[in-house]
Amino acid sequence: MSEVLVEVTRGPIVECIHRGDVAVVSADGKLLYYTGDAHKLTYMRSAAKPLQALEVVLSGAADRFNFTDDELSVMCASHYGEEFHLNAVESILRKLGLEKGQLLCGTTTSLNPDYALKLANLGTVLTPVYNNCSGKHSGMLAVCVQKGYSLEDYTSPVHPVQIEMKNIISYMCKIDVNEIVVGTDGCTVPVFGMPLYNMALGFARLANPEKLSPEYKKAAERIFTAMNNSPEMVAGTNGFCSELMRITKGKLVAKLGAEGVYCIGVKGMGIGIALKIEDGGTRALSPAAMQALEDLKILTEEERELLKNFKIKENKNNVKAVVGQVKPAYHLTKA
Amino acid sequence: MSEVLVEVTRGPIVECIHRGDVAVVSADGKLLYYTGDAHKLTYMRSAAKPLQALEVVLSGAADRFNFTDDELSVMCASHYGEEFHLNAVESILRKLGLEKGQLLCGTTTSLNPDYALKLANLGTVLTPVYNNCSGKHSGMLAVCVQKGYSLEDYTSPVHPVQIEMKNIISYMCKIDVNEIVVGTDGCTVPVFGMPLYNMALGFARLANPEKLSPEYKKAAERIFTAMNNSPEMVAGTNGFCSELMRITKGKLVAKLGAEGVYCIGVKGMGIGIALKIEDGGTRALSPAAMQALEDLKILTEEERELLKNFKIKENKNNVKAVVGQVKPAYHLTKA
Repeated sequence: MSEVLVEVTRGPIVECIHRGDVAVVSADGKLLYYTGDAHKLTYMRSAAKPLQALEVVLSGAADRFNFTDDELSVMCASHYGEEFHLNAVESILRKLGLEKGQLLCGTTTSLNPDYALKLANLGTVLTPVYNNCSGKHSGMLAVCVQKGYSLEDYTSPVHPVQIEMKNIISYMCKIDVNEIVVGTDGCTVPVFGMPLYNMALGFARLANPEKLSPEYKKAAERIFTAMNNSPEMVAGTNGFCSELMRITKGKLVAKLGAEGVYCIGVKGMGIGIALKIEDGGTRALSPAAMQALEDLKILTEEERELLKNFKIKENKNNVKAVVGQVKPAYHLTKA
Repeated sequence: MSEVLVEVTRGPIVECIHRGDVAVVSADGKLLYYTGDAHKLTYMRSAAKPLQALEVVLSGAADRFNFTDDELSVMCASHYGEEFHLNAVESILRKLGLEKGQLLCGTTTSLNPDYALKLANLGTVLTPVYNNCSGKHSGMLAVCVQKGYSLEDYTSPVHPVQIEMKNIISYMCKIDVNEIVVGTDGCTVPVFGMPLYNMALGFARLANPEKLSPEYKKAAERIFTAMNNSPEMVAGTNGFCSELMRITKGKLVAKLGAEGVYCIGVKGMGIGIALKIEDGGTRALSPAAMQALEDLKILTEEERELLKNFKIKENKNNVKAVVGQVKPAYHLTKA
């Protein structure tokens, strides 16, 4: 049974609650802490992107095309479509000799609603490059070019690039490839369903790749480094993933997924964290993730202070007066 | 304990659930059906607007200013800021001899995100009239003008218009005025917290006012008629509240509230329905409300057919392929 992870208060009462589940797993597969059901089955959604991006390195594409940290990081991103994101994606496409029309992610407005309105107000004509998944898709195209795969159907679940990425997820998360549940993402490619335990294990291994095969170890280190050197690529200005990595400076990798998923891999400590908000409520993600990081004593006092507005979010009315809070309401239990 | 009201599927699994509570109450106060906790305490939020609008009639303002159905209906609305909404609010202000700057609701973008982007794209400069609560606020101003109350502080919880509206809620919902929990809304005015049971009772009495005092009965009939004659005012083009009333043609009043509240009063049948999604998830409102209406056999087969896309909402990806559903997952229990 999921537990209450986050409360939304207004005036004297709790107006809403967000239930969910958390798993904290060591790089060697031991469940260390949990809240609710550590084995809750759900889709990893975009939290899988850093694992999928491993294939860009493993395939040799990263070396051949000399992808920069910005470019590798945007492949792991759910980005806001800001100018620096567009530049990174366009640079990848240029290196591949491809056009933006070959991205099959569809065109969407920015994940940051204020920025979406700003672009609309500027009369910006959106292209697939603006899609928050355009980096991931350009990474998939890079693998296709490198390996000589067909480009026009790379989003199909039976296309070799999708099968290879599923195999990588299977290896990293230590789950039989046939046990991974496959659905379709908003951006048309397959999404991977598995227990939270396995997602946490995958992120533990991504951030602590000592026991991976040499090729995987090298790939994991390169992705970890790219995301940490270019954290603004992973979400965008003031985004939680970006700020968490920017402020903790190489301590962890963190990535959200749609419908209330959050995964963190902590370097050195040898652990991964995966959580799911059962209702998919995005507003609960950063308070829930911050509580896990605090319970695990991962953040310094200075880091906690710099990130405090992600832990307790103020609920403001239209004239900017604080009328309530969105805040964590749980603690991890030792397994 | 709240129960699962709505499931969100993707591919072969349920990706998210929305828990909540439902109360179905007769106009004479009998709990008839429920799911979860029929006495769950939460804020009524904008679902209180049709009850608050009673004061516009009770005060004599509706008669004095000859408010039309459009104008009374928009006072009960969480509207999208479409042109016909703006026209209605501006007409009210003109009749009152007031300027739009006297609306203290703040300026917000449309509740309909596509329409918000469209307005941004047109370069529209938003004013407080665009705020989804501008009708309610203009109704409050109408009462102030009618009764000679001060205009510059009408949003304060101790202003007489707010105290009178709280007393009306107390009368309609049969709850001691001192037991109503007061918080602050996004639009800066007080919001009223009470058990779902009392919200359902208030809506049962609004739609079935036979046992109200003669003045209240007349006011309730006028508001019921206005909302049903001008349902497009209550939400907007393709909005659930608007479509539900448009299609059922005088059978009920229905109003959503922020953070997952929905209230319905059914005429003739003598019942009111109130529900709350515990996580505040708006996407779950129409599936949950439709299930209650079906379980209570309120809709004809034709009405159900016309409203079916509000009961089971298709979850589409960026290229418009259906990848899942948002659908009801409960039935009412007889009390």
